[in-house]
Amino acid sequence: MTVLDAPEEQTRHEAAGALPAVDFDTAPDRYRHWSISIEEDVATVTLTVDENGGLVPGYALKMNSYDLGVDIELYDAVQRLRFEHPEVKAVVLTGGLERMFCAGANIRMLAQSSHAWKVNFCKFTNETRNGIEDATAHSGQTWIAALNGTAAGGGYEVALACDEIILVDDNASTVSLPEVPLLGVLPGTGGLTRVVDKRHVRKDRADLFATKSEGYRGDTAVQWGLIDATVPRNSFAATVSARAQELAAASSRTGSTGVTLTPLDRTESDNEISYPHVRATIDRNGRRVHIEVDGPTDAPPADAAAVLEQGVDYWPMAVTRELDDLILRLRTNEIELGTWVFRTKGDADKVLAYDAQLDDLAHDWFVNEVRQFFKRTMKRLDVTSRSLIAVIEPGSCFAGFLAELALASDRQYMLEGVYQDVDPDAAPATVQLAPSNDGAYPMGNGLSRLESRFWGRPDDLEKARSVIGEALDAAAADEAGLVTLALDDIDFEDELRIVLEERASLSPDSLTGMEANHRFVGPETIETKIFGRLTAWQNWIFIRPNASGPDGALRRYGTGQRGDYDYKRV
Amino acid sequence: MTVLDAPEEQTRHEAAGALPAVDFDTAPDRYRHWSISIEEDVATVTLTVDENGGLVPGYALKMNSYDLGVDIELYDAVQRLRFEHPEVKAVVLTGGLERMFCAGANIRMLAQSSHAWKVNFCKFTNETRNGIEDATAHSGQTWIAALNGTAAGGGYEVALACDEIILVDDNASTVSLPEVPLLGVLPGTGGLTRVVDKRHVRKDRADLFATKSEGYRGDTAVQWGLIDATVPRNSFAATVSARAQELAAASSRTGSTGVTLTPLDRTESDNEISYPHVRATIDRNGRRVHIEVDGPTDAPPADAAAVLEQGVDYWPMAVTRELDDLILRLRTNEIELGTWVFRTKGDADKVLAYDAQLDDLAHDWFVNEVRQFFKRTMKRLDVTSRSLIAVIEPGSCFAGFLAELALASDRQYMLEGVYQDVDPDAAPATVQLAPSNDGAYPMGNGLSRLESRFWGRPDDLEKARSVIGEALDAAAADEAGLVTLALDDIDFEDELRIVLEERASLSPDSLTGMEANHRFVGPETIETKIFGRLTAWQNWIFIRPNASGPDGALRRYGTGQRGDYDYKRV
Repeated sequence: MTVLDAPEEQTRHEAAGALPAVDFDTAPDRYRHWSISIEEDVATVTLTVDENGGLVPGYALKMNSYDLGVDIELYDAVQRLRFEHPEVKAVVLTGGLERMFCAGANIRMLAQSSHAWKVNFCKFTNETRNGIEDATAHSGQTWIAALNGTAAGGGYEVALACDEIILVDDNASTVSLPEVPLLGVLPGTGGLTRVVDKRHVRKDRADLFATKSEGYRGDTAVQWGLIDATVPRNSFAATVSARAQELAAASSRTGSTGVTLTPLDRTESDNEISYPHVRATIDRNGRRVHIEVDGPTDAPPADAAAVLEQGVDYWPMAVTRELDDLILRLRTNEIELGTWVFRTKGDADKVLAYDAQLDDLAHDWFVNEVRQFFKRTMKRLDVTSRSLIAVIEPGSCFAGFLAELALASDRQYMLEGVYQDVDPDAAPATVQLAPSNDGAYPMGNGLSRLESRFWGRPDDLEKARSVIGEALDAAAADEAGLVTLALDDIDFEDELRIVLEERASLSPDSLTGMEANHRFVGPETIETKIFGRLTAWQNWIFIRPNASGPDGALRRYGTGQRGDYDYKRV
Repeated sequence: MTVLDAPEEQTRHEAAGALPAVDFDTAPDRYRHWSISIEEDVATVTLTVDENGGLVPGYALKMNSYDLGVDIELYDAVQRLRFEHPEVKAVVLTGGLERMFCAGANIRMLAQSSHAWKVNFCKFTNETRNGIEDATAHSGQTWIAALNGTAAGGGYEVALACDEIILVDDNASTVSLPEVPLLGVLPGTGGLTRVVDKRHVRKDRADLFATKSEGYRGDTAVQWGLIDATVPRNSFAATVSARAQELAAASSRTGSTGVTLTPLDRTESDNEISYPHVRATIDRNGRRVHIEVDGPTDAPPADAAAVLEQGVDYWPMAVTRELDDLILRLRTNEIELGTWVFRTKGDADKVLAYDAQLDDLAHDWFVNEVRQFFKRTMKRLDVTSRSLIAVIEPGSCFAGFLAELALASDRQYMLEGVYQDVDPDAAPATVQLAPSNDGAYPMGNGLSRLESRFWGRPDDLEKARSVIGEALDAAAADEAGLVTLALDDIDFEDELRIVLEERASLSPDSLTGMEANHRFVGPETIETKIFGRLTAWQNWIFIRPNASGPDGALRRYGTGQRGDYDYKRV
């Protein structure tokens, strides 16, 4: 992604006093920038950006450059292909303009954006590109980039998320990452990492590539591994189509009837966002939001056919959609709410019945999609720059996959016994792990959250594994290492109040850095390297004077003048 | 490390127009802050900081807080224990003050430092801590932290680099990382990473620990894994001593006569730093430095005894010492020289004879130390934020371990044939790999530079392995994937000139971020996580207004006022 920065005080967003509120609801018949066409088992997703269709005023999306609105549609398209089109087994990503596939993120848009907006935008676009790779890996929908023209910056980075890249050979079109030489920043959506770690381009060639603004084409690009093939224009469509059909034929994807992603049932007020199974209550003074997730009221449907018939109303699917939407909205629109407090409410046994069904029917295409979607939603939470606190009280149902909400949290507080003054006869809270907590929903680093929690402590991990299936009261959950603190009601409320107040008083930047380091113990993957190493460097470079100072490269972009750099190396 | 930032324009360093020039030469009889005492096979290294012994004026090093000068002495002590004391098999790190082991990096010192100074300081201190771990792992010198009082921030982080941590139990002394709650920044020398990745503290407990400014002591600290033991003051010395003797007894370290690290023979002028085997010529207008390394003039000594007799004059040792010193000086004192150009000069066969000896005598304690030292020096290069270019010309000797200089570089340029107008009769340059390039000198991520170069391309790696031992001319080196570009003399000089000019014109920040990402492909370790993920986050946090703005936590430290934060999460 090509990204720009500008000092916060000079941005339109800041001048207007707030970031624009963003809605993630869309559907193909409302797309302004993308079209999807499906022919048998191959879908073609075409980018033809509406220049005047920017999410906020102030810039024209020329040369198929994009903003968050373009990416919200792409995310929607990826989701719909997975859920609504079980018949689609290969996806061709291409462009609708002549000679330019995509010029990357729009520079003017970014020039007018605050630092927070840009960082959040990059996070979402990174997640969407990871989602493309996830569809290829876990849904039998292999994405191919058919670059009908130049793919620059973010345009090449979205191609890098595809399994194969075919570039038109017209003696002009190239792939490039011009951020370093032209803008003095890094490519923002994983370009550097995927070039060396995914496409295995030699580091000295990666260095040449990322410092050459015009990029490479033809045999060099193929030989270095930047693309897989380059094909003359007159045989381009036929080659892409043949390759897509080959990949589709090799897919193990099954299913014939899709599940339509109907609009979410969401109501919003100043201090609440609520869905049928998820409610968020905002405490602005406390700079926190309380999120409550409801367990199911009924037993799971009888079999895969009955699950499919429920579709978006299948409880695990409904909960996941609501959580996903809520995470995106809070992350984008409520950046002063630094702490998210998670509670669950319901019947743990019923949750566990669904959890078991998700395992039993994992071979079913739709159940598989629900599982993968829940996995991705939890990964979104892992990279969310908010403090996450789970509160486990009587009436809660942190069991099976819902227990991932607690395990993903930075801390877990559990009430021992009951609130004597509220409901002395309530059943004390329990936590109950299921086999799914031990691998069905891995983090970006490939570890289950249970493995991550007990990293380097195999005995503790085995102890936690040994209580899978047991309903653990506070003392037992504490003994198994699953909660941070177990307190009785005399101390619990005070402790929690102090914890939340303290958290709200700390530097949000240092919390973000600290949480990012603590959450990703152990091994690293392309995904975690992008969210950790690459993103952190990029954020640093964004706010350095050489990029965003008055004479920095970003501020001078388009003026014909280069950045006036302070050449000191840091 | 406890670190502070201040806007660059307000720092003393910047006001004075330049960073203070730093000298890394020292010796135990000149130490102001450390003392070493050796009793049989156990050394005790004691920190008693001279309050008035700061490297630059403007602060007092109270409560055993440190600055770069304190760390330069520690680095020297670590090196001398390895080279001068083969008899030492365990090292006790302790403090000479009452009740305070070490308060971490001095806040006032950091408050007056520029961003570049702080980042470079953190890098060096990180390398020294890695060196302590390296001594434990590869020299049979196991370091134990004997915390005779509170270890706060950087004080606890240096203890984390030791293999074991024993804390005095006096109902007062704690270990802590107060950076997040008190200063709004991250611990700067690997604290967050080592707490979870090395000591395997559960992430929710790590979160509690890193947000609790007063830290933990006693049973909780032991139970969570923050320390290994806590011992009452009256039995503290005896317990530490017994444990050190146990560890020493288990060491496989051999050798009886050490090698004295005599002062380096270095001459400096405005535009040159030269040593007997290494010369650096500075081109200030070009913002680059040309570094030439000489091969050996003689055959290697006959056997291990003869090697030991040569001591610091043993050619691989001498070259490594000179390179190490040069890297440190250029990195600290010459921050506008953004490109380092490496050349070698000498007889490749003689280099290879030494290279073979380093392998053959690897079991010898001194040869092992030379190998480990060269490994660490190359690692220093890997994390150096400068563009590294290797130039391979007639008369060069990029062979065996000296070829690591080329492999560590971002690009390798090789002349095909000879300079017709200079020496038409010269022998064309060759590159020659040895078995040592395939594992003896691994990078921080555990890969050899050869494995790193061909990451994900096993066929290319095998091809490169198949030419180990062959003298490769430019065409063959290119074919084996070992050089970026091989050109004849008509094009070579022009190309190189353009490359160096272009490089010098790019944003130094974006180059730093790009190089850090390209150099570390593949797996990650504690070391690479500290230099990559953690350092990048920390650098970002340092320059955010919440830390270094006029009302930021760092600027307000010591005023009794907390930071006035912008609570938006980014």
